[in-house]
Order: sequence, then structure tokens, then C-alpha cells
Amino acid sequence: MPVYKVTLAYDGTDYHGFQLQANALTIQQRLEETLSFLYKSKIRVEAAGRTDAGVHARGQVVSFTAPALIPEKQLPVALNGLLPRDLVVLEAQEAPQGFSARRDAVAKVYTYTIDNGVFPDVLRRRYTWHIDRHLDLPAMQEAATYLQGKHDFKAFQSAGSKVKTTVRTLFNLDLTKQEQFISLYYKGDGFLYKMVRNITGTLVEVGKGRLSPLEVARILESGSRRQAGATAPPEGLCLEKVLY
Amino acid sequence: MPVYKVTLAYDGTDYHGFQLQANALTIQQRLEETLSFLYKSKIRVEAAGRTDAGVHARGQVVSFTAPALIPEKQLPVALNGLLPRDLVVLEAQEAPQGFSARRDAVAKVYTYTIDNGVFPDVLRRRYTWHIDRHLDLPAMQEAATYLQGKHDFKAFQSAGSKVKTTVRTLFNLDLTKQEQFISLYYKGDGFLYKMVRNITGTLVEVGKGRLSPLEVARILESGSRRQAGATAPPEGLCLEKVLY
Repeated sequence: MPVYKVTLAYDGTDYHGFQLQANALTIQQRLEETLSFLYKSKIRVEAAGRTDAGVHARGQVVSFTAPALIPEKQLPVALNGLLPRDLVVLEAQEAPQGFSARRDAVAKVYTYTIDNGVFPDVLRRRYTWHIDRHLDLPAMQEAATYLQGKHDFKAFQSAGSKVKTTVRTLFNLDLTKQEQFISLYYKGDGFLYKMVRNITGTLVEVGKGRLSPLEVARILESGSRRQAGATAPPEGLCLEKVLY
Repeated sequence: MPVYKVTLAYDGTDYHGFQLQANALTIQQRLEETLSFLYKSKIRVEAAGRTDAGVHARGQVVSFTAPALIPEKQLPVALNGLLPRDLVVLEAQEAPQGFSARRDAVAKVYTYTIDNGVFPDVLRRRYTWHIDRHLDLPAMQEAATYLQGKHDFKAFQSAGSKVKTTVRTLFNLDLTKQEQFISLYYKGDGFLYKMVRNITGTLVEVGKGRLSPLEVARILESGSRRQAGATAPPEGLCLEKVLY
């Protein structure tokens, strides 16, 4: 049976994250239900990144095996006709046998958006973290430079996942400001559990003047989660792209 | 008692428009409830533009009379602490006696956003009209030039409101495209009932090639609503600014 690679976007606000859960609606559940209905057989999907509750995606990738019933070009339209409005399939293509959206990913891009206006932009409140206090962007940008590159990111990993190694490479961590919005662009070969939100929370402490940029370098070296800032809320986070 | 001029933003998705209604939640109701609670007396507001169900605002203006209990600078924070997250007060100032947000407005700016991507941008679906068929932007822009200026806009007025004259001046009607989004910028001295959505619906017919730009000029001259396009849906519309 063919293997498909499907790119999707979703508004995570009303979901309990990607991964299947016993008593809560998740993206995986909606997607598998819809695929199973379409193919009239049980379909299981695997995602490049299991986004948490409330986190969004513009370019999540999933893989699955299914009977060769629907041409890949027609798959997005067929699925979008059945899916709710907050979950959209953007692209589908047949992948080589054995392709895995999770294992074969070589890099991922996440963005985190902070609304730093005095009052929140009400039309972006579902997709931003509002912080009314002025943040010192140059200080946050300096701190970010210490985090780029290959490091042991143990200090920025939340409890709850077992991984062999906590070493990751952060190719880019760029902070830009447009109007009242500060955008954090993360590109890395992989991310630990809640790593983007933990780094973001720590950089916000720098923006508020509670941590110096150099202290962030020391937190990274220390490998101790307790010294880092709080986890940023999920609504500002978006999985933008997965590279293969 | 002082008169206040208050600027507010809202996500209209979950409201039945601005104006009070018997059995449906409206912006006016939420706002008057909150003001009445804050001032411990019945407060009535008047809006610059009574937006319809599902329409948004980034710069709606309301006026009201209230006891001089709260300094104008503290009013936004006091109100935002009580209002729901989809309704935000941006600014408050004392206005001259007799000021009316509706009568004293000299111009208004609305935007209408069309998502012309093959698939909708899921994070903007609440604030855009998705049209997957490619729209001919230059043709729409040409048609828009015939609508700019002082005209009798009767052909673009929906039934349901009584006005003395249907002559209005449209200072600007500019169409621009950024990524997959077409933005229509309307600035005028006043707008008839559903005028922006009726013009937008007609320009979309031009974009689809069903009407020529010159036919739009003829529809304007004819004064006949039946020849114009359908009313565009509310979610793409936003009241951006009111000028005094």
C-alpha cells in the first residue's frame, strides 16, 4: 500500500494537542477519523511534531499508509470537504515506502509571537502571548545568540518525555519586531519537550530586565531547568515548517 | 456630567453585531452592562458605526455620558479588567459637551480582506472571506476607480435602513495584494447599509470575470441593487478607524 506525506495547518485553540487522548478531542483523532471514513478502513497517522494543547500549525507533516484509492492530487480537496474549518490539508504526495514524517524530518521551524502592545490586538489574541510591559528587544536578541548552535538544551526541557540525548542544534533563533509584535523564529534539527516555550519564557525574563543576557548563557551551561524562566503559554506558538 | 469618547476593538465572530437586540448577545449590550456595573448607574452608549453580526472592529468609537468618577486615563484598564477577551478598550478621553460619536464622525475607514489562496489560511479564517478561484486583481482595481468620489450609491444599499439621501463620497477604494490576501481599503464620509459588503461582492464578480469593470460603472449609474453582486460575508469586514 502507498505511503502518503500530508502537510496540514490548524488552529490549535479548541484542541487538546496533536496526540490521541482518552477523553479529549485532539488533531490526531479528527484526522484519523476523517481518513478512516474516507478510506473505509482504519488509518493511523504519525506526525513530525506532536504539538501541545493550544499550539497551532501552518506546516505540520503527517505520514500514513492507505489503500491506493484516491490520487494524491485529489486528497487535499477530499479531506478538506470532511474536516472542520480549523483543520486544513494543504498538500499531499506519495512518499517512498518506509517514509516516516517523524523519523525522516531533518529540521523544523517554529515561530512564537508576542503581542507587546499596551492593549492586546483583539484579532490576534488567539495566536499571540500578550505582554503589556515593554520588552527590551536588543537584550533578548543578545541572549538568543548564546543559544544558537549545537548545545545540550537540558535546562530548557520540561519533565515528561524520555529522550536519549538532550543535545540539539538550533540553526537560527532570530527575534524581530513589527508594529507591536515580537516574532521569535526557531529553526533546529529537533526540539526537546516544551523547549521553544521554555526558551521563549526565559527570553521574556531578559526582556523584562530580570535576567541578563549572560545569565541565559550560564543557565544553558548549568543544565538546570529551575534557573530558567517559566514556560510561555501555548497560544503564541506555531509549527511553521518541517524539512526533509 | 462629562461626555467620554472611547475607542474599542472587537472580534465580532461571537456577537450578533453592535446594536442591542432582544434575545441575542451584542457588543452594545456587553459594553453597557460593563459600564453600568463600573459606574453603578445605567449608562447608554452611541457608536460611530453599527457593525453587523460577525463584523470586526479595530477602531470603533463610542460616546457616553457618565459621572466623573474615573479619570479618563484609567478608564481603559478599568474596563478591560471587566470585559471579555474579545472586546478591548484602546483609548478613552473626555469630549466636549454634546459630542456624538455618530453625528460628529467626518469619515470612516473599513477594510475587507479576501483570502485568495487555494486553501484558506486557517489562522485567519475568522477574519477573511476565502475564495479559492483566482481573482483578476487589475480588473477589480479598474472597477474600483469608477466607484471612487461622490456618487449616489443606491445600487449598493441593502434594504432595511431609511436614510434621507443615498449620496456618499468614497475618498478612497484601494485594492492591494500581499501573499494570498487581497485587501480592500474603503475610506468615505459615510456608508449606506451593507454598502462595503455589497461593493466587495460586486468587485469579486469582476474578479471572477462575470462582470466587466465598465458594467460596475453602469450598475452605479442605474441605482439598481438587483444588478450588483451578492453581499460579501461579514467575517472579512473590519471597521478600522473613525475620523472626527
